Amino acid sequence: MHISDAFDAGNIRVVDASDPSNIQLEIKHDAGNEHLQWFFFRVSGAKDTPCTFRIVNAGKTSYPKAWSGFRTVVSTDREHWGRVADTSYADGVLTWQHTPEADQAYYAYFAPYSHERHLDLIAEASQSPRVQADVLGTTLDGRDLERLVVGTPGEGKRTLWVIGRQHPGESMAEWWMEGFLARLLDESDPLARKLLDKAVVHVVPNMNPDGSVRGHLRTNACGANLNREWHEPTLDRAPEVKVVRDAMDTTGVDLCLDVHGDEELPYNFVSGAEGIPGWTETQASNQATFLDVYERANPDFQQVYGYGLDKPGAANLTMCTNQVAKRFDCLAMTLEMPFKDNANAPDADVGWSPGRCRALGASALDPIMAVLGSLR
Amino acid sequence: MHISDAFDAGNIRVVDASDPSNIQLEIKHDAGNEHLQWFFFRVSGAKDTPCTFRIVNAGKTSYPKAWSGFRTVVSTDREHWGRVADTSYADGVLTWQHTPEADQAYYAYFAPYSHERHLDLIAEASQSPRVQADVLGTTLDGRDLERLVVGTPGEGKRTLWVIGRQHPGESMAEWWMEGFLARLLDESDPLARKLLDKAVVHVVPNMNPDGSVRGHLRTNACGANLNREWHEPTLDRAPEVKVVRDAMDTTGVDLCLDVHGDEELPYNFVSGAEGIPGWTETQASNQATFLDVYERANPDFQQVYGYGLDKPGAANLTMCTNQVAKRFDCLAMTLEMPFKDNANAPDADVGWSPGRCRALGASALDPIMAVLGSLR
Amino acid sequence: MHISDAFDAGNIRVVDASDPSNIQLEIKHDAGNEHLQWFFFRVSGAKDTPCTFRIVNAGKTSYPKAWSGFRTVVSTDREHWGRVADTSYADGVLTWQHTPEADQAYYAYFAPYSHERHLDLIAEASQSPRVQADVLGTTLDGRDLERLVVGTPGEGKRTLWVIGRQHPGESMAEWWMEGFLARLLDESDPLARKLLDKAVVHVVPNMNPDGSVRGHLRTNACGANLNREWHEPTLDRAPEVKVVRDAMDTTGVDLCLDVHGDEELPYNFVSGAEGIPGWTETQASNQATFLDVYERANPDFQQVYGYGLDKPGAANLTMCTNQVAKRFDCLAMTLEMPFKDNANAPDADVGWSPGRCRALGASALDPIMAVLGSLR
Amino acid sequence: MHISDAFDAGNIRVVDASDPSNIQLEIKHDAGNEHLQWFFFRVSGAKDTPCTFRIVNAGKTSYPKAWSGFRTVVSTDREHWGRVADTSYADGVLTWQHTPEADQAYYAYFAPYSHERHLDLIAEASQSPRVQADVLGTTLDGRDLERLVVGTPGEGKRTLWVIGRQHPGESMAEWWMEGFLARLLDESDPLARKLLDKAVVHVVPNMNPDGSVRGHLRTNACGANLNREWHEPTLDRAPEVKVVRDAMDTTGVDLCLDVHGDEELPYNFVSGAEGIPGWTETQASNQATFLDVYERANPDFQQVYGYGLDKPGAANLTMCTNQVAKRFDCLAMTLEMPFKDNANAPDADVGWSPGRCRALGASALDPIMAVLGSLR
Repeated sequence: MHISDAFDAGNIRVVDASDPSNIQLEIKHDAGNEHLQWFFFRVSGAKDTPCTFRIVNAGKTSYPKAWSGFRTVVSTDREHWGRVADTSYADGVLTWQHTPEADQAYYAYFAPYSHERHLDLIAEASQSPRVQADVLGTTLDGRDLERLVVGTPGEGKRTLWVIGRQHPGESMAEWWMEGFLARLLDESDPLARKLLDKAVVHVVPNMNPDGSVRGHLRTNACGANLNREWHEPTLDRAPEVKVVRDAMDTTGVDLCLDVHGDEELPYNFVSGAEGIPGWTETQASNQATFLDVYERANPDFQQVYGYGLDKPGAANLTMCTNQVAKRFDCLAMTLEMPFKDNANAPDADVGWSPGRCRALGASALDPIMAVLGSLR
Repeated sequence: MHISDAFDAGNIRVVDASDPSNIQLEIKHDAGNEHLQWFFFRVSGAKDTPCTFRIVNAGKTSYPKAWSGFRTVVSTDREHWGRVADTSYADGVLTWQHTPEADQAYYAYFAPYSHERHLDLIAEASQSPRVQADVLGTTLDGRDLERLVVGTPGEGKRTLWVIGRQHPGESMAEWWMEGFLARLLDESDPLARKLLDKAVVHVVPNMNPDGSVRGHLRTNACGANLNREWHEPTLDRAPEVKVVRDAMDTTGVDLCLDVHGDEELPYNFVSGAEGIPGWTETQASNQATFLDVYERANPDFQQVYGYGLDKPGAANLTMCTNQVAKRFDCLAMTLEMPFKDNANAPDADVGWSPGRCRALGASALDPIMAVLGSLR
Repeated sequence: MHISDAFDAGNIRVVDASDPSNIQLEIKHDAGNEHLQWFFFRVSGAKDTPCTFRIVNAGKTSYPKAWSGFRTVVSTDREHWGRVADTSYADGVLTWQHTPEADQAYYAYFAPYSHERHLDLIAEASQSPRVQADVLGTTLDGRDLERLVVGTPGEGKRTLWVIGRQHPGESMAEWWMEGFLARLLDESDPLARKLLDKAVVHVVPNMNPDGSVRGHLRTNACGANLNREWHEPTLDRAPEVKVVRDAMDTTGVDLCLDVHGDEELPYNFVSGAEGIPGWTETQASNQATFLDVYERANPDFQQVYGYGLDKPGAANLTMCTNQVAKRFDCLAMTLEMPFKDNANAPDADVGWSPGRCRALGASALDPIMAVLGSLR
Repeated sequence: MHISDAFDAGNIRVVDASDPSNIQLEIKHDAGNEHLQWFFFRVSGAKDTPCTFRIVNAGKTSYPKAWSGFRTVVSTDREHWGRVADTSYADGVLTWQHTPEADQAYYAYFAPYSHERHLDLIAEASQSPRVQADVLGTTLDGRDLERLVVGTPGEGKRTLWVIGRQHPGESMAEWWMEGFLARLLDESDPLARKLLDKAVVHVVPNMNPDGSVRGHLRTNACGANLNREWHEPTLDRAPEVKVVRDAMDTTGVDLCLDVHGDEELPYNFVSGAEGIPGWTETQASNQATFLDVYERANPDFQQVYGYGLDKPGAANLTMCTNQVAKRFDCLAMTLEMPFKDNANAPDADVGWSPGRCRALGASALDPIMAVLGSLR
């Protein structure tokens, strides 16, 4: 039996893999040594062998509480990502028992989304006559930070920004982008056509390609948590945020959606900017409409569970949603999807999955359309 | 040059095809000699030859006014169906000029939907664990009339019926069914899952397979217009209606949607049962909600253009929607799609198309969900 | 439970289907009342029900001996065609026991190939710049008889004819054509390119569309066995042969391959024209090379089992191969594939199958190439 | 305009990209600073802009003569890889003029084959019941070196080894592997079935994953040219060779095919082991058969052009083919494919291409089968 993480987004350290019934592993830290939780590795040579995997430093990860109720993601064909039913957390150790059905099995925290797939997504979208693609800047590891501009700028059109994966381990954000873009570029879809009659959508499918390739949970190549850098981003520490915020300054923003995953809560929900100074009735009203319509269009979204509200004026302006809402006096929201499952509609086979992320992304056109006329 | 209609849904008679610049054709009557408008044929051996096609009996078809604004549907690969820009109607003749880009070109009134594709649709749907498929009866030509029961019957669940293509030339109805069924059976779609928690959907994708194969516009094999047979259907004349109405009597009906195409109006719209005796506030209110939500979910649907309302009590109870609304005191509606295009969002390349039909079918889950709780 | 054959190539008569454990069926005669053996039908409503099917007139079919070793072909999704292991023949009755896994199951003598699929094949091939498609004539039921001319005629090029499915129940011939054409039109395939540098290939993928749609075994719409009409074909009785032979007279023929299926022998083999008057050394030598190379390229082909040779001069000139070999003094051969399986390499799941037909069709380029230089 | 190589196999250094009509670039060295020739980069923001690219150090690459007749590979969708007609080499500079048709364009020395695609290839092959996949060892960058064992070991079976991409820039080798494996695992292919009845095939689709990801032409992560390490491979310098040669020692070898690309010659050819001490008649005879059959099966292969023969006993035993032929007294050959095109059958659009590599890989079963019985 052999374990490897030497590929895109791989993250594991083998402590002891000599005994299949007690494979001991550790998750590596993100750059910066503060965060860890994302894992992704391949086991070879264990076909039909009952294996017990133990992540022995699970109690020391960024969100140890998140392991409760978590089921490990698994694939043998790299296309279908299922869940390991027999996953449990106790005494600081995440344990799962699984018998691989093929010579290789991949285990992950969530279905991975590679940089190659990302480049395919950009290339495919760029074939659409609706899209202009450009590079906003360069990451610390030298990668391009890409933006897709969907729709044709014009008099009176609204400016929307949809960004994702500031936290690279939250790969569900890029699966969401696939569904969102597929619908936005579908020439048979009337809502997409209508939306693009009235708005231009700036999409950054992956804000953090360096962290994604490195197998990080939350940081970029120098250890910066990008969603704590929106107040005063610098090219040295958070060029990803700096160039996007600069581009926003150029275009203005009428609506911003920042797509994330949440380690702990088994629900899809939105976190708003209620705590910013000068939070307006318009912002509140548009957000309420957005949430209601999103929930109706896609009942995997809900409004019961979520984060508590910030106190008025107490918002953390280093975060994208708060900074953008304040900076542009616009509707800005953080969308959170679960790593685990939607507890309101659990799926024993796949939990929260790429397919469901795509469906949720496609459904986002409905609430955007619902608020479009009242954004300004 | 050679012209043929000897295939599924083919319909043309060659008057004179000796001169490519003046190809004279006639549409054949449906059984019963009352209706004609659907056409579908193949031209071979005219690659790169400028051709002028004239349907010389266009003025004597069921809806001669419908030719105004119509553009002929064309394909060389039988997958992509475009429109012939240079189509016109004058003096009782429909004329189009076209230079085929391949050795064969197919021309049609709308993108055809063959019986083989229909059987594939039934077979594919039947692979889903959500579906039970059965045969309700036999048509006059001996074909099976198939029903898909989607969802598991259970205490308190609503009973929905969705039927299409009573008029076989309205092939858009079955393209709509593809989109409707694809979403209803999509395990990643939360609206489908939620709907099937509360309802069972009986789907008859094609009410008139005989007329479909024969290349009819409106009638079955004996010349019956099925949507004028719902009052007293008989196995002799309209077995298709008889067996479906009997099945409805067995299951009851909480909502019925009957999917059609309209030859004249370039819009998607619904025609209701307002003229039935005993039309209720509940019916009216549910219908209004349905229409509003459908329009929001899919702006190819609209409420401005449509048929005039029947006077109270003056509804024609031989029609499905009126008969079902009355018989089951339920919400029943006829959905009409255009043969031409949606004039609110015209598409120069394809007009109203299979892809847009599918999108409209998929979107129907939104309005169904919106009224589900108030149907009884 | 309900049984139907009312679709393309359907053929069954229900004697008694009241008891799933004893379903009694009869195969219908071809037009002409001489032949019968092809069957194809759908059972609905028998999911999870153990069924016993009995073809009670199997002993009176064209080739009763052929049922020995035969296993019925079955599909629930119309894409994958497996075999029913528990098939047996005794006392003039073909019996199989099967429990359908879906609400519909299709049973057949061989995987069917519909006219719609045929039209798709023609349309797709016609997209290739290598192909010119035309219509040679019209069948008795009014269908087009299509020819694909692959390659560009030129000085010194050889003229090849490849035709199939004179006997419509031998659907394996058209699956073979799919593989043959796919390779011939593959721009990455160097053998196809080389062959088309030196030859033009005339392909008639289906010589008998009427019989195919009607569910016949061996005859066209008026009961003619096309492969007994090559001596003096008439437009009244065998227009399919008449127009093809006329076209051959126009082009000349250097090599002709006529693709068939054999009901009895579980092997792929070729039957030649050894019995024609004036059989030449060149013909013999080319044929020997063809067979050797075909066998090497595709070991599903073999030379041990086959028909006995005609005595010199005793060939039946009403058959395509003999008539063409004699008429054009060329290499002409009949390729036979099994209905059952290749006994040298049996496949328990699928027997002889569409996939293997396609592979054998693709491999035919190798022996054609091997003899091309010595045909004249 | 922005140029990037920060992705799998990327290799370019921008000297000056300020002027689209004079974009100056350099290829980076492989590790070891000895080799350079492979390039791969993306241009963003140059849609519809006429660009002139100059590789200013082309004269200092490993094979400067190879640029003559070379046309740069280009793609905008990352699926179709075409050729830039207007490519030329003079005065040590490779120049091409191209106007990108999309917001991004990728330029390369040959169609790239990423590590993600490699992992997909391994995963997909591993789904076949014919395959056992294992990891032979670990590269210097920590990647797995994977082997696919195709077929079931058994008494008297021959042992074949097929390896590729020792030189990572020769990506055609892995495209070849796709075609070879697809056919070997195709259950409808009779030659594959027959071959696996008599042999087990050990396949290493990529001998040099580190160099592949790094964008090297010829070396691994420490600068070793793997095909000069077969005499005394060490885990320190060439673990890729060490573990494969050890595995060969365990299995024995009856035939070895080592798949490469040649920068200069516009032909497909084989280089043998004629120069080894003790070169036998059997080796010579089998090789001659192999070459003849390969050429017949796939005329993109030829025997006229190639390398000169080593003098008897003068073979370089550091190379795989010589070492293996000598070590196991078996048939061992190096297959070379062009970077440019097959000059015998040039393709203006794509040159030598992934599709043609796959076809050549699939065709390799024919010559292997032809010699299988006489290997021992």
